[in-house]
Amino acid sequence: MLKSKQQTLDQAVLDELIRAVGKEYVHTNVEQLVCYSYDATATRQRAMPDVVVKASTTEEVAAVVKVADKNNIPISPCGARSGLSGGSIPLYGGIALDTTRMDRILEINAPDMIATVEPGVVTKRFQDEAARHKLFYPPDPGSAEFSTLGGNIAECSGGMAGIKYGVTRDYVLSLEVVLPDGRVINTGKKTWRTVAGYDLTRLFVGSEGTLGVFTKITVKLIPLPAKVETVLAYFSSAGNAVDAADGIILDQGVIPKTLEFVDSICIDSVRGYGGIDIPKEAKAMLLVDVDGDPQIVKRERLRVEEACKKNNAFQIVIAEDVEKRNALWQVRRVISPALFKVAGKKLNEDVCVPRSKIKEVTEEAYSLAREYSIDTACFGHIGDGNVHINFLYGEGDEQQAKVDKMLDRVMEKVIALGGTITGEHGIGTAKAKHLPWEIPRDELELMKSLKKLIDPKNIMNPGKIFVS
Amino acid sequence: MLKSKQQTLDQAVLDELIRAVGKEYVHTNVEQLVCYSYDATATRQRAMPDVVVKASTTEEVAAVVKVADKNNIPISPCGARSGLSGGSIPLYGGIALDTTRMDRILEINAPDMIATVEPGVVTKRFQDEAARHKLFYPPDPGSAEFSTLGGNIAECSGGMAGIKYGVTRDYVLSLEVVLPDGRVINTGKKTWRTVAGYDLTRLFVGSEGTLGVFTKITVKLIPLPAKVETVLAYFSSAGNAVDAADGIILDQGVIPKTLEFVDSICIDSVRGYGGIDIPKEAKAMLLVDVDGDPQIVKRERLRVEEACKKNNAFQIVIAEDVEKRNALWQVRRVISPALFKVAGKKLNEDVCVPRSKIKEVTEEAYSLAREYSIDTACFGHIGDGNVHINFLYGEGDEQQAKVDKMLDRVMEKVIALGGTITGEHGIGTAKAKHLPWEIPRDELELMKSLKKLIDPKNIMNPGKIFVS
Repeated sequence: MLKSKQQTLDQAVLDELIRAVGKEYVHTNVEQLVCYSYDATATRQRAMPDVVVKASTTEEVAAVVKVADKNNIPISPCGARSGLSGGSIPLYGGIALDTTRMDRILEINAPDMIATVEPGVVTKRFQDEAARHKLFYPPDPGSAEFSTLGGNIAECSGGMAGIKYGVTRDYVLSLEVVLPDGRVINTGKKTWRTVAGYDLTRLFVGSEGTLGVFTKITVKLIPLPAKVETVLAYFSSAGNAVDAADGIILDQGVIPKTLEFVDSICIDSVRGYGGIDIPKEAKAMLLVDVDGDPQIVKRERLRVEEACKKNNAFQIVIAEDVEKRNALWQVRRVISPALFKVAGKKLNEDVCVPRSKIKEVTEEAYSLAREYSIDTACFGHIGDGNVHINFLYGEGDEQQAKVDKMLDRVMEKVIALGGTITGEHGIGTAKAKHLPWEIPRDELELMKSLKKLIDPKNIMNPGKIFVS
Repeated sequence: MLKSKQQTLDQAVLDELIRAVGKEYVHTNVEQLVCYSYDATATRQRAMPDVVVKASTTEEVAAVVKVADKNNIPISPCGARSGLSGGSIPLYGGIALDTTRMDRILEINAPDMIATVEPGVVTKRFQDEAARHKLFYPPDPGSAEFSTLGGNIAECSGGMAGIKYGVTRDYVLSLEVVLPDGRVINTGKKTWRTVAGYDLTRLFVGSEGTLGVFTKITVKLIPLPAKVETVLAYFSSAGNAVDAADGIILDQGVIPKTLEFVDSICIDSVRGYGGIDIPKEAKAMLLVDVDGDPQIVKRERLRVEEACKKNNAFQIVIAEDVEKRNALWQVRRVISPALFKVAGKKLNEDVCVPRSKIKEVTEEAYSLAREYSIDTACFGHIGDGNVHINFLYGEGDEQQAKVDKMLDRVMEKVIALGGTITGEHGIGTAKAKHLPWEIPRDELELMKSLKKLIDPKNIMNPGKIFVS
């Protein structure tokens, strides 16, 4: 029933879209279409839209969605298209609906500690603007410098600060959503609390563009911590680093702002980067931020150091000022792209396990690396149990087949350990195959029936989350 | 279609229920039925069930729900029946399904900082047990000493510590739910993060028993703060106290564990209670807990004091040890029942507004009090904008009519201020009339369609949230 990407859209439909947003924001030239055919999973999957439409207001979004609804055309909303699960790829063609022109910070209300933004606002820009009001928006995906809040909310992004501050869903108070039939609704309330009726807000957060298009987002803000300091600890084994993370949380009772683990291959890939002199014998490291009142920071930092020393950290670097902190963090932030130095292709997984199972899941990853002779690197938010397992591989069917098999086995292991196949990237197209491995039939059917209820024609980002 | 409470259940149905849970746990004697006819809103609404069934396992709950489903009998799950919105009242009779026998703490997993409990566990007992593992379950409704976790999750309870630690929904990781047709599903994952598919967990949290019966609950725990201290500040006007609360958050940048406001009538009602000598001239007070590392606590406490002094607090009491803290808090916790000293009947509302609107909403309440000559007392969690407005009135239709009118006008005002009619008690039966005042038609229809999808026969706690 859905028009596929093989089928060129009628000129009549294009005319309707032009009436909705203006001629200069409707693109059918191949250069534009190609740009909207991929996200950060580009090496694995691409799909071309038939048309790119760039809306600038709620009314325009609603008008575009109504055109899609009337003509049974698939519509895939997108922001910066930097997702890691294929969430914004227009799998069945149709309309790629770009919301990056909707980039206004509509209100930062300091007394009420809330803000309302449009979906195209880049996360880091919003964090910086909030900071100018001495307020803090904690969700901090690795992509913060280029990803948009609309995308963050569609995927329920996690990021670095989740261990202490929670994830995106914990900060969203209210959403303006254009439903698949073009109606505009508002969920939740611009208050810190409400329990009036069902929690529609969190039904839409993390729904990966499959239930509607966000056009306004209201979030909760908290006071900006006065100080942040960073501890970088080097270890001679991954096991020591994981034990030190345990020590920070369980023995020292510190929940730091960030608790990032980096393994040997990751370290080698960023060696010499940003002027940080990483010791030759470093086989793992922890990067830990502590934040708050300066006295608190000092005290917690000493506790973090203590836990690292007790677990055989052989060198510890402290960064108290912004410049030095940024230098250390820049090393962490470039790991993901730097891993392409190891091999031409990379599959970055974001499994999450109960924290006590981190060693088991990383050891499984390293064991598979040996078995299949595919380099495998681990890093990530181990404070939350959220580990990024990266398979680094080359061109060719044989390599791809190996990695597909390794991925399946990691997923099996994670599920057996009581974990989840995705902690923060979403299912998208990348893990739609694995979702039924984790989610039992009845639960999956309930999810599908929610999709059918809200999007009966299946025009809103079809092919995502669910295989069929 | 639903059997009403006028209609006695067939013996055949009772026999099925007896087979499900055992004869000693199926009650039809009027003494038991009366006990299940009310909650803490007793003075406003009651409804008798036809039968009380006390289940002890998931299998028993599923068997009871299947009997209800097969025979089209309404079924209202309940815990301690201490709710403040009528959520557990069996409005259409049928089965009152008591889950308080399911009171096992199944696991407190300290390394993974998660716990799994049955729904009948009393909140305070769970908090205490977690504390023995040096872990903290922050959601802290005023009813914590007697309400159950199942009830807390059904209503998405807020409570005292919400300003710093969030509410119930922020801690629930996974739920085992018996659906209205008797199938058992599991939502979420026992990990700190997951974004695998739609967020079913938060669809059920706050659904007020209308979508299913919780039989297992997994929550996230955090490290127990090492120290708590309490600041009690007296003011000669409510306005000064509200300004001091602003000063704590906005000028001092402190988000305390609790930030409770108490007005003049509330103070008078608890005067002399618990050995606390409240000054005669006190017209308002703030009760503020700060928690964390001892150094942090000391520093934050001084900042709280500073903000109170700057806003004309004329006396400040500090409690550093548990005994003195408990004495101060006991005064706060008895306010709600103590208000019955003012008048025989009480309507306790839990509106929530953007924090900057607290003065406007309390002034509206006091203005209505004068206009209608009905004593009106305010207290509550003003750090979150969540104010309890209490109408204290007497017997008789005229008094009831006045209070009904006052309630309508408060609701109108709150909605006009951008607030919500319920911050933590839920809609239940008490505010079903007002829900459409707050929630627009399309959003309400979406909520109703979710209900219909999951409970097509409308047997699961019918008559709650939605009027029709």
